[in-house]
Amino acid sequence: MKRKYSVILGNLGNTCDRFCSSYKENPTTMAMLKRAAAIPHVQGIELVGTWDIRPENAQEMKQALQGHGLQCVSIIPDLFADKRYWKGSYSAADPAVRRLAMEYTRQMCEIARELGCGTINLWPGQDGYDYLLCADYEQQRQWLCDAVATLAQAYPDLQFALEYKPKEPRTHSYLARMADTLLLAQETGCRNVGVTIDTGHAYVGGEVVGEAIVLAKRAGNRLLHMHFNDNHGSWDDDMIVGTVHSVCYIETLYWLDRCGYEGWLSMDQYPYREDAAGAIGESILWLRKFDQILQKHRKNIDELVAAGDAVKTSAFLRSVLA
Amino acid sequence: MKRKYSVILGNLGNTCDRFCSSYKENPTTMAMLKRAAAIPHVQGIELVGTWDIRPENAQEMKQALQGHGLQCVSIIPDLFADKRYWKGSYSAADPAVRRLAMEYTRQMCEIARELGCGTINLWPGQDGYDYLLCADYEQQRQWLCDAVATLAQAYPDLQFALEYKPKEPRTHSYLARMADTLLLAQETGCRNVGVTIDTGHAYVGGEVVGEAIVLAKRAGNRLLHMHFNDNHGSWDDDMIVGTVHSVCYIETLYWLDRCGYEGWLSMDQYPYREDAAGAIGESILWLRKFDQILQKHRKNIDELVAAGDAVKTSAFLRSVLA
Amino acid sequence: MKRKYSVILGNLGNTCDRFCSSYKENPTTMAMLKRAAAIPHVQGIELVGTWDIRPENAQEMKQALQGHGLQCVSIIPDLFADKRYWKGSYSAADPAVRRLAMEYTRQMCEIARELGCGTINLWPGQDGYDYLLCADYEQQRQWLCDAVATLAQAYPDLQFALEYKPKEPRTHSYLARMADTLLLAQETGCRNVGVTIDTGHAYVGGEVVGEAIVLAKRAGNRLLHMHFNDNHGSWDDDMIVGTVHSVCYIETLYWLDRCGYEGWLSMDQYPYREDAAGAIGESILWLRKFDQILQKHRKNIDELVAAGDAVKTSAFLRSVLA
Amino acid sequence: MKRKYSVILGNLGNTCDRFCSSYKENPTTMAMLKRAAAIPHVQGIELVGTWDIRPENAQEMKQALQGHGLQCVSIIPDLFADKRYWKGSYSAADPAVRRLAMEYTRQMCEIARELGCGTINLWPGQDGYDYLLCADYEQQRQWLCDAVATLAQAYPDLQFALEYKPKEPRTHSYLARMADTLLLAQETGCRNVGVTIDTGHAYVGGEVVGEAIVLAKRAGNRLLHMHFNDNHGSWDDDMIVGTVHSVCYIETLYWLDRCGYEGWLSMDQYPYREDAAGAIGESILWLRKFDQILQKHRKNIDELVAAGDAVKTSAFLRSVLA
Repeated sequence: MKRKYSVILGNLGNTCDRFCSSYKENPTTMAMLKRAAAIPHVQGIELVGTWDIRPENAQEMKQALQGHGLQCVSIIPDLFADKRYWKGSYSAADPAVRRLAMEYTRQMCEIARELGCGTINLWPGQDGYDYLLCADYEQQRQWLCDAVATLAQAYPDLQFALEYKPKEPRTHSYLARMADTLLLAQETGCRNVGVTIDTGHAYVGGEVVGEAIVLAKRAGNRLLHMHFNDNHGSWDDDMIVGTVHSVCYIETLYWLDRCGYEGWLSMDQYPYREDAAGAIGESILWLRKFDQILQKHRKNIDELVAAGDAVKTSAFLRSVLA
Repeated sequence: MKRKYSVILGNLGNTCDRFCSSYKENPTTMAMLKRAAAIPHVQGIELVGTWDIRPENAQEMKQALQGHGLQCVSIIPDLFADKRYWKGSYSAADPAVRRLAMEYTRQMCEIARELGCGTINLWPGQDGYDYLLCADYEQQRQWLCDAVATLAQAYPDLQFALEYKPKEPRTHSYLARMADTLLLAQETGCRNVGVTIDTGHAYVGGEVVGEAIVLAKRAGNRLLHMHFNDNHGSWDDDMIVGTVHSVCYIETLYWLDRCGYEGWLSMDQYPYREDAAGAIGESILWLRKFDQILQKHRKNIDELVAAGDAVKTSAFLRSVLA
Repeated sequence: MKRKYSVILGNLGNTCDRFCSSYKENPTTMAMLKRAAAIPHVQGIELVGTWDIRPENAQEMKQALQGHGLQCVSIIPDLFADKRYWKGSYSAADPAVRRLAMEYTRQMCEIARELGCGTINLWPGQDGYDYLLCADYEQQRQWLCDAVATLAQAYPDLQFALEYKPKEPRTHSYLARMADTLLLAQETGCRNVGVTIDTGHAYVGGEVVGEAIVLAKRAGNRLLHMHFNDNHGSWDDDMIVGTVHSVCYIETLYWLDRCGYEGWLSMDQYPYREDAAGAIGESILWLRKFDQILQKHRKNIDELVAAGDAVKTSAFLRSVLA
Repeated sequence: MKRKYSVILGNLGNTCDRFCSSYKENPTTMAMLKRAAAIPHVQGIELVGTWDIRPENAQEMKQALQGHGLQCVSIIPDLFADKRYWKGSYSAADPAVRRLAMEYTRQMCEIARELGCGTINLWPGQDGYDYLLCADYEQQRQWLCDAVATLAQAYPDLQFALEYKPKEPRTHSYLARMADTLLLAQETGCRNVGVTIDTGHAYVGGEVVGEAIVLAKRAGNRLLHMHFNDNHGSWDDDMIVGTVHSVCYIETLYWLDRCGYEGWLSMDQYPYREDAAGAIGESILWLRKFDQILQKHRKNIDELVAAGDAVKTSAFLRSVLA
């Protein structure tokens, strides 16, 4: 299986949190692109709408990507940093906000076509709720479903990859884990709606990524995209792959192959205090190491997975990891 | 909405954990039944297979239940305490174990018919995995799905309520949360397969029960049964309802009504060191209090849920709770 | 026990997160002060250094507080929003940063004296680490300890309340929970060093606040200050008191009294999308309700705490809460 | 640093949980000892009181240990499996139970002397609480402290290693994490009272073991013993070292050396469904691998820890781990 590595452009930019408004400098989009292109093995870029890509810079971006020999892997409409979506985008109680979100996403879909990019990565981060007895889960989930269905029908040549995350910025997201996102994808009735796994989001959600990959396959081959990072298990720390966990990445790559995933392996980190290009480059190099282990021992792993003997699996992992 | 309260019979029995093999005395089944019947508002009983109910005591149990004026709410086949299922029941790698689980469950289905009980509550607690790279998630999930489908087709007059739980006794269960359990229920293709929510399992899974209820409705009205208890959020402590959380129970009852749930409210606790009948009775009395609040203020709550203003919801909750 | 309620001024200001740089408008300090003063029962204000209070506005602030009849409860030096502290303040590896943090804190201590404020609330939020094998825990903890000791010795008329929090903005904070913060307070050898409990930080840390209060008492009556809010258990959601939990606030007030706490009950929330004054006001009203329950039933609670019978405690709580 | 590996004897025995009373066969103590002795690199054994060691079999055990060339590393009084301690041992509200716990522990101390074993590993697992407003934290903590002090004074030639754990079997333990256990150790006023780290307990408690080791050093070199296992982060799964995490074990060994730990590395697992000797042996082999990495790269790690650059640390870890 040939791996294709990419990165979300904004990973190379400034970082902040709710306390400190800026930890780094704010590079220009083109400066970030140059840095991204220089990271070994990067072949593709994901662009966040509005921040990186707008109607007026689409042609410029297209040429810049070509100049760097990079592919536009996905466009991620900004449904999370625009304060107008503070109480939701597609599922906002205010119909004017829902319309705005739809118009904006359509604009991003047009740009995707213009850039020859086949994937819209939808992370409706503000669509969720914070307090109990403060949301009509039934109505809002329906609005969210309708919006995705409308978009998917309007752009049958694009695939819509729904990125789930249990929480942040809301205390609860409507698209929280693989299975509920699959249910919504199925409810749209559209074949071009699927799911993005962000490994860190999965860990926060208590998921084993390998199992999540299987769920997506069983629900009609709906795994469309992969975001990689690591964390300490209870929050989306967006760290370098491999700095907390090791075994689960080998398992993840194994199940991606078993389930026929042919998409990108994209880095999605938030290097608050680290050199961004260095941190992203590390993640790719870790994944390539894990992949080498897998390629070399795939048959062995097939047998271990079938055997279900933890002592044998441990002995194998020890022989390849430490 | 008329509430019907029930209890799992074994809640009145002995308790243990992996360190201490017995905290209490072991009452007989009939002694437990008598105690359960004496708990105010209890109208129904759930029976665990083998422990409480076997082919040879089915008639005796039927009469005892009638004698107490109690309904058999569900039968819960014992797929978790029998060591033969230590590595899974319906999804065990060993085909002999899978066959055993099927035969045993069929036996329980026959007893259910004999007792006039319409619900089989399936908690395949051993069906999951502990270590990474030690399970074939794809194959095992298929076996699990096939087993449930086979049973549901063989007993179309019974409903099969799948009880999910993220972990324990395995570190990861195949039926972990509402949404993945709904996916499996749908994959069976059977209308008589649905889901049991155990409120504590939902909390451990990071779910808001109200939202889980909505997911079940959207997936074809598949909420079949409710188990109630409370916990501290990270483990299935199986405590008295209302001793940690309050607000979420009002919300749960609200969404049960909004989604048309007409089933039982069953108590499922594990009173390690408490008087069992007292602990169960408390849970019912808490639920009745929460229900009174709901009945009295339903219209108000409708408006709060639609308004999505946390300050208003807080003021309301304060007026009814403290 | 007479309760004194206060609020951190910045709670009334703008909100943001790492995705969205601003959810609200940015009111002036004096506008916020006016709003705070108008919240029923508020008698005191906590000021964040630099944001709310600087040498050049200290006199103006003093008069404004007097004009509103408000007391300055604490000054919270800004050791978390200034990017120069991005890798720690008192424990930064760079000695120039450590010096800067000390000079700045001394400036804030001087202002505290000027305002007649007896408490410096230290939340060294950037003092911690993100990655494994990336911090010298021993050296950095020593620097942190030395800094606090130096300050406490230099300002014996002030008390230094160390606010702990398990994580955010770092994945791990050096002052993470009550007990490790008490150890550091003891290591300073200064009687005027103690601890601030933020209820939400305690929940995230897996603590029961009542027990944390007892730990502080046993370590030499070191509980100096209280911050109140609520959350869903796994992150510092900074929500309105009482909207998730209820019982634990009654218990917290009970143990505050039993351990002789005579300080302020200060609201520390982050109302991302809520009306700030409304959200803070709600928290105070909830606490007052919980306090009324405690005042009325203190003797009963004494007995329940001594008896240790969960069924009896449940029955009591049910009688006062639902 | 010469490593000494040991194992808790009971790890080789039967396993169970609250659902299933027995997953395996029940070997005799001597059969378990034989199996333990056969695990490569095992030089010492920890014995659980009553189960493995009683006054009447002490001499036999002594000879058996000598026969196998094994040292008795610690005795772990059974304060957790005896139902008389179901509501606490040293901190039980019932004075008769507290007396019983003391007498029993004294008996174990005598046996320790008889066996030439210098360490009593105290895990008072039942000393804690389950429900809010059901425990007098102040009184019970004092009883716990008094008991440990009394024992430590009575047996000054023995060291008392307090093993902490956040929860299980109680929802909250009095000895929950490193820092609160250090506070209690200090409160006893005895130099021969210290702490046992169980790596899995630390993970559940949100601790980084390296930092916990530093806390113990700062509190007067109070780290007395180490128990090793791995888990998925939220529960004491008692798994094989290295099957979930890797990096943290290298860091743990590093800080053990930096803080001058010269005690045992003892395996404490609970191999529910695994071959016990195989699972324990794996853990030791993983630790030896991690230790080889450390020995070879200690200087490099010193520099990385001082530098605090996550990208460099990642590159190093990648070079040694994958």
